[in-house]
Amino acid sequence: MDIRSFPELYLHELRDIYNAEQQITRALPKMIEAATNPELRQGFEMHLEETRGQIARLEEIFADLGEKPGSVMCKAMEGLAKEGDEIISSVARGEILDAALIAAAQRVEHYEMAAYGTARTYAQVLGHASHVRLLQANLDEEGATDKKLNAMAEKINPAAVASR
Amino acid sequence: MDIRSFPELYLHELRDIYNAEQQITRALPKMIEAATNPELRQGFEMHLEETRGQIARLEEIFADLGEKPGSVMCKAMEGLAKEGDEIISSVARGEILDAALIAAAQRVEHYEMAAYGTARTYAQVLGHASHVRLLQANLDEEGATDKKLNAMAEKINPAAVASR
Repeated sequence: MDIRSFPELYLHELRDIYNAEQQITRALPKMIEAATNPELRQGFEMHLEETRGQIARLEEIFADLGEKPGSVMCKAMEGLAKEGDEIISSVARGEILDAALIAAAQRVEHYEMAAYGTARTYAQVLGHASHVRLLQANLDEEGATDKKLNAMAEKINPAAVASR
Repeated sequence: MDIRSFPELYLHELRDIYNAEQQITRALPKMIEAATNPELRQGFEMHLEETRGQIARLEEIFADLGEKPGSVMCKAMEGLAKEGDEIISSVARGEILDAALIAAAQRVEHYEMAAYGTARTYAQVLGHASHVRLLQANLDEEGATDKKLNAMAEKINPAAVASR
C-alpha cells in the first residue's frame, strides 16, 4: 500500500498526468512528421507548444506542494503512444493516415480530459484554489484541441474516402 | 502497410473497440471486487451488463459487413487495464480506493467515447446508416456512465478526504 490518504492520491494523479504530458512531447514530433495535411501538421505543432505550457502549469503545482514530479510511469499513455506508432507504421500515408492520426490524437485528448477533470475535482475538494485554476486552464486547452480535431476530421475524412 | 483504404481503417477502428470492450469485461469484475461503496459496486455491475450489450451491437455491425471481429489488440486499453490493476494493489481499500477506481473508470469511459465518436463519424461518411445508430447507442451509454461516475465522485471524494 503506497497511497493511504486523499492528498497522496491527488499527488499520484498529478504525477501520472505529468508523465503523460512528457510522453506526449515525445509522441507529437512523430505525428507531425507522419501527417500530410499542412493544417493538421500545424495543429500538432501548436499542440506541442501548448503541451509545454501545460507542463509548466503542473510544475507550478508541484512547487506549491513542495513535491517533485517524481517518476510515475503513465501506463495508459504508454499504450496510447504504442497505438500511435502502430498506426504510423501500418496505415498508407496521405489522407487515410491523416484521418487515423486525428483518431489517435482524439483518444489522447480524451484521456487527458478525464485525467485533468479528476485532478481539478480533487484540488477543489482539498481546497487548493490556485491549482483548480491551473488544472482548469489545461482542461480547457485539451477540450479546445479536441474540437479543432473534430473540425479537421470533417474535411479530411471525406477526402480519405475519395482517395481510395 | 496493412490499411490502404478508408473502409479498411473503419474496420480496424471497429476491431480495436471490440477488443477494448472484451478487455473491459475482464477488468470490471476486479473493480467490482475492489470497490467498497455498494452504489459504486452496483454501478460497475450494471456497466458490465451494458458492456455485453455493446459487444452484441458491434457483432451486428461485423455481421453486416461480412467480417470477423478479428484479433486486433487494443494497446491503449491494455495500458488502462494495467493502470487499474496498479491502483487496486497500491491504494488503501475503502473510500480512497473507491475514489481512485472512479478516476480509473472515467479514463476508460473517455477512451471509449473518443473511439465510438470516431467510428460513428466514419460510419456516417461511409453511408452505413444502421451502424451509425448502433455506434451512437454505445456512445450514449458511455457518456451516461461517465455522468453517473461524476455524481458518485461528488459523494465519495469528500468521504475519502474525511477518512484520512
